[in-house]
Amino acid sequence: MKQDYILLAHGSGGKLMHDLIEKKIAPSLKSDLLSVLDDSCEIPIVAEKRNFRIAFTTDSYVVKPIFFPGGDIGKLAVAGTVNDLAMKGAIPLAVSLAFIIEEGMPLNELEIILESISTTAKSAGVEIATGDTKVVERGSADRIFINTSGIGIIPEGRDVSGINVKPGDAVIISGTVGDHGLAIMSEREGLGLNIPVVSDVRPLNSIIEKLFSEIPSNAIHALRDPTRGGVATTLNEISRQSNVTIVIEEEKVPVKEEVLGACEILGFDPLYVANEGKFILFVDPDFSEKALTAIRNHPDGKDAQIIGYAENPVNSNASVFVLTPLGTRRFLTMLTGEQLPRIC
Amino acid sequence: MKQDYILLAHGSGGKLMHDLIEKKIAPSLKSDLLSVLDDSCEIPIVAEKRNFRIAFTTDSYVVKPIFFPGGDIGKLAVAGTVNDLAMKGAIPLAVSLAFIIEEGMPLNELEIILESISTTAKSAGVEIATGDTKVVERGSADRIFINTSGIGIIPEGRDVSGINVKPGDAVIISGTVGDHGLAIMSEREGLGLNIPVVSDVRPLNSIIEKLFSEIPSNAIHALRDPTRGGVATTLNEISRQSNVTIVIEEEKVPVKEEVLGACEILGFDPLYVANEGKFILFVDPDFSEKALTAIRNHPDGKDAQIIGYAENPVNSNASVFVLTPLGTRRFLTMLTGEQLPRIC
Repeated sequence: MKQDYILLAHGSGGKLMHDLIEKKIAPSLKSDLLSVLDDSCEIPIVAEKRNFRIAFTTDSYVVKPIFFPGGDIGKLAVAGTVNDLAMKGAIPLAVSLAFIIEEGMPLNELEIILESISTTAKSAGVEIATGDTKVVERGSADRIFINTSGIGIIPEGRDVSGINVKPGDAVIISGTVGDHGLAIMSEREGLGLNIPVVSDVRPLNSIIEKLFSEIPSNAIHALRDPTRGGVATTLNEISRQSNVTIVIEEEKVPVKEEVLGACEILGFDPLYVANEGKFILFVDPDFSEKALTAIRNHPDGKDAQIIGYAENPVNSNASVFVLTPLGTRRFLTMLTGEQLPRIC
Repeated sequence: MKQDYILLAHGSGGKLMHDLIEKKIAPSLKSDLLSVLDDSCEIPIVAEKRNFRIAFTTDSYVVKPIFFPGGDIGKLAVAGTVNDLAMKGAIPLAVSLAFIIEEGMPLNELEIILESISTTAKSAGVEIATGDTKVVERGSADRIFINTSGIGIIPEGRDVSGINVKPGDAVIISGTVGDHGLAIMSEREGLGLNIPVVSDVRPLNSIIEKLFSEIPSNAIHALRDPTRGGVATTLNEISRQSNVTIVIEEEKVPVKEEVLGACEILGFDPLYVANEGKFILFVDPDFSEKALTAIRNHPDGKDAQIIGYAENPVNSNASVFVLTPLGTRRFLTMLTGEQLPRIC
């Protein structure tokens, strides 16, 4: 491998592609499943019962820049897909990895991304099971796009979905909001903040398992990570899915000082800014305090807060409201337009 | 939905994206699994036993042009992933669908692609289970890239892998070679051939199941669809995986008249040109004739041929050879360099 840059031939299916996969990609990822190099990998399953459920998810990552404070596109791609599985209460089993690379990308950047993918997968306890590499001509993509898909097993007794929220449920956020979006934005715009904003990108499956180990599974109604569109958009999605009104108290939503500062400079509302290491939980109110304690006792959840509750919609108009300090309610709508392109 | 073109906001996570998914994408795909719109879908499994194997695969599609004789990027994306599962002997269960769209893509092109995805998935009997939509700025991608990942169940008794080929195995090709690559190339270059070359893109799971129903599972050692790099590259991959020498007779490899003509004009060897609706089978020689008959009795396999055999490598140098009409052997190497960028 004398090339220092990715060539079109690295995506041809031929010799250079095999060299890239066998000498760079597979060794970096140290995956037994990947080592066979068939068109599909084979994953042995030992289920508790013959009847069970798997979770399946996909996401493409087009974040710009590909390296940012707190992470890079590789870490994001693994964590994002692990988190989509965890938000279904699933235990991640395997992740696939597909690259679309722009001709001319420096090979050492790909190596850094592979290292980051490997580290993140290891920290989440998942294996990169299968993959694909395509290369397109210079100008036909922007450096690198990554798709990760994931499969997981949903243990018996868990039924977590945006459609399962009930009036009365407490709404918990696992930590500060807006960190990822502002980290990307300040890097992209060269804001030069006094205190740099660092992305919160991380796998959340460990904290979710802690939660399931400490409160009854059937008390956990919905989980979602507020990525694109932020907390406001996520709450609107769930309000529509479950036909409930959701009311939150804005001052209870934790926001880091530096994120708030950057939001003020840029004119953003932190409730609409993407997160990549936080989740929103809808929980049976009888278990809300216990859930909050479980989350706070995990290193990824120390800033968790109960921020609101779900209620019956008035005249069947399920909506999301912010309770103002004066006790009135204002609508919190879904994100309209495009605030921050290519945040993930 | 007044926009006739894809906007950045269609990928924002907000209102326009939800409208696109709920009003265009989900209705086109008519998938129950997709309709819930959680971050992961939930797939119920009823296994024959508690111990079993699943196949998992991923591919990104960057074909240019996105519409070509015989298909489009949507049909290719579904068929390609279904085929990767079928090549493991797996019964496809669900396919994911992730779009990376360039801002400004006409919405009606996306609609045509969605229709094609829906038709192809239906014909293969798989459900589009989960998805993702990203939009990047004009100039940061080339119209549309699609990733599909797939999962399938491997029935008991099947053990199909490039590592399982044995000396003596017969090599069968399921039909004519080079159709897909030449269809793309002639469309791209505006060759204006007398008889247009049409891509062979199609799902192969039906013909593979026919094969398994007519010969014993343990006689089927390896299956692979010769896509990028063509038959020559696929044979080299398997030669290396199983450490066998493979010998084929070139004149037994079926090639359509018009494909041969186009290859001559362009200076291509059909053995290196991509296929998207053919497979290579390595089968126990005692069952090769029966396998050939089973394949030929399926509409997608009527031109199938036994083209060669595997043998013990000389001095452990596993290689691929073409037997010339004079009885001598010439090396058939893996594709080197890039012959046809963005063929799939």
